[in-house]
Amino acid sequence: METIIFATKNKGKIKEINAILADMNVEVVSMEDAGITFDVVEDGTSFEENAMKKAVQIMEIGNKITLSDDSGLEIDYMDKAPGIYSARFMGEETPYPQRFQAIFEKLENVPEEKRTARFVSCIAAAFPDGRRLVSYDTVEGIIGWEAKGENGFGYDPIFFVPEKGKYMAELSPEEKNAISHRGKALRKMKEMLKKELEK
Amino acid sequence: METIIFATKNKGKIKEINAILADMNVEVVSMEDAGITFDVVEDGTSFEENAMKKAVQIMEIGNKITLSDDSGLEIDYMDKAPGIYSARFMGEETPYPQRFQAIFEKLENVPEEKRTARFVSCIAAAFPDGRRLVSYDTVEGIIGWEAKGENGFGYDPIFFVPEKGKYMAELSPEEKNAISHRGKALRKMKEMLKKELEK
Repeated sequence: METIIFATKNKGKIKEINAILADMNVEVVSMEDAGITFDVVEDGTSFEENAMKKAVQIMEIGNKITLSDDSGLEIDYMDKAPGIYSARFMGEETPYPQRFQAIFEKLENVPEEKRTARFVSCIAAAFPDGRRLVSYDTVEGIIGWEAKGENGFGYDPIFFVPEKGKYMAELSPEEKNAISHRGKALRKMKEMLKKELEK
Repeated sequence: METIIFATKNKGKIKEINAILADMNVEVVSMEDAGITFDVVEDGTSFEENAMKKAVQIMEIGNKITLSDDSGLEIDYMDKAPGIYSARFMGEETPYPQRFQAIFEKLENVPEEKRTARFVSCIAAAFPDGRRLVSYDTVEGIIGWEAKGENGFGYDPIFFVPEKGKYMAELSPEEKNAISHRGKALRKMKEMLKKELEK
């Protein structure tokens, strides 16, 4: 059984990826389980660069295939901000309701057709032998006029998903997983990993 | 026949890589030949990041497998400087003899065993489907006490190669190719490309 490190401190993400990879002969462990404590500086200029930087730096310490992810929200009217800075937008410690307010103010009187936005997720994998993999996916939506819903996290409460007629934070975990950028990117990564591990 | 773009404006590099890949069913073309004019900002924090950034950005424009390289000189006594800044050390326009002088001054009275240095070369490949490859190699040597030799380029005249008993710039192109970091990294990349193209 191949052990794969997921460069995250988030146990929820480990559970999620292990569920997705359940039918493969691999076990995904957290950095902590792999005995690695290391803070990667996310100074890349794209989701791919940030995700790959984490994967490569942790792979170089653990010497095992390492997965990592980076994601964010692109609001078209705000020139794709907050984008790669989503987690740090207005400061890492700023409560999300405060961020929502700032976004609603920037989009005041902006009509629906100009409120387009997307969640982007990028998953990167780094192999000790120099192979790297990148998968991307997005979910398209619009920035709503209020924060709604109790599920999810981050910007989910202000992100309206037209195909569901609901805000992202109103979706059940199952509904979200089926359409979400992270879920889709992880399933793409699974197919790529399968191919590479066959060799 | 697969067309591969080499993200460089240097025709010499295209010739070199085509010679190395001669027995594969691929043709390597320059950015210019692919009709791409684009300046990638080399703001990565490692050779891999810089090489990969170039490969990915050009691949996204050309939508073809794209190779790229980044290389530099690490002088241990100078905390591995100039490293990823080798080409820009003291300013991109600064003539190399002036840079050599500055290095000799920093290493004044530093004994041979502390003058260790290496040329590092990193080759990156980006595939449109999300696959990435990275190969690395180095050549170890010491910083000499004078600039010597007419071959090569960059820091070759001050880099003494103990196993050859000569400065890098004194080696013939054939001798240099056999031991050089770029040549070795390119041959590793060839093996990785072969495997990936078989799938």
